[in-house]
Amino acid sequence: MDIIPLEVVVRNIVAGSLSKRLGLEEGYVLEEPIIEFYYKRDDLGDPLLNNSHIRALKLADEEEIKEITAMGFKVNDILRNYLSNKGIELVDFKLEFGKNNGNILLADEISPDTCRFWDKSSGEKLDKDRFRRDLGGVENAYREVWSRVK
Amino acid sequence: MDIIPLEVVVRNIVAGSLSKRLGLEEGYVLEEPIIEFYYKRDDLGDPLLNNSHIRALKLADEEEIKEITAMGFKVNDILRNYLSNKGIELVDFKLEFGKNNGNILLADEISPDTCRFWDKSSGEKLDKDRFRRDLGGVENAYREVWSRVK
Repeated sequence: MDIIPLEVVVRNIVAGSLSKRLGLEEGYVLEEPIIEFYYKRDDLGDPLLNNSHIRALKLADEEEIKEITAMGFKVNDILRNYLSNKGIELVDFKLEFGKNNGNILLADEISPDTCRFWDKSSGEKLDKDRFRRDLGGVENAYREVWSRVK
Repeated sequence: MDIIPLEVVVRNIVAGSLSKRLGLEEGYVLEEPIIEFYYKRDDLGDPLLNNSHIRALKLADEEEIKEITAMGFKVNDILRNYLSNKGIELVDFKLEFGKNNGNILLADEISPDTCRFWDKSSGEKLDKDRFRRDLGGVENAYREVWSRVK
């Protein structure tokens, strides 16, 4: 499989970089999910791309972008509903995709390293933001997510 | 008319911020034009938006984005061809749009302040980059453009 060098981010609630980009408060619940494509290029700082950038770089054509978008939203529907039943709010998550014989395939893990999970009742962060923002209790948070979904 | 707070940028050749975003050299000729939407918010640094950001912010719906895109490309076709006949390469330009009674209207000037013009034979910059990049000869460049199109 050839990995497409895009980080595909699906968001249900505004957090992190989106809050800075749109000027909306962290915690703002989006009416419909947002999808974003970031170019996996450390040397460029993983910049946001729009569809015409993706075509110009020949990373994917319009049909493939549509397919990736539909798959991203489908994963979101399933995961958001599943986690909600476990008392976890799916704020956002990152996926990567690959191509194999012309087919687009999902090629990623789902974990507190690649998602934002908030406790539904307390709003407590149960993901990598505990580490990124130096909140402590990283291991306990990961164990808490595990205990709810295992 | 209500101005839509978006800077719409159409690009034929890679220059400026696009070169940094995509990691492509300035001067790279795009196979098809790129269109970009920047949120007119000085306090946020005029960030790049994708279509799902634009919908989330309720700046325009999908139909309006399509209409603005089509108008942007149409202006590009006309202007690029017109300027080419005057020996000027249209590298990129910025437009703004407004809404009036539900209609999308073009609402902007076209000038060396809002476009990148390169001399077709020498590649010399005939626009605001002479000022931005401290190249000197701003006034002469503007006069040169004027003399070719007047």
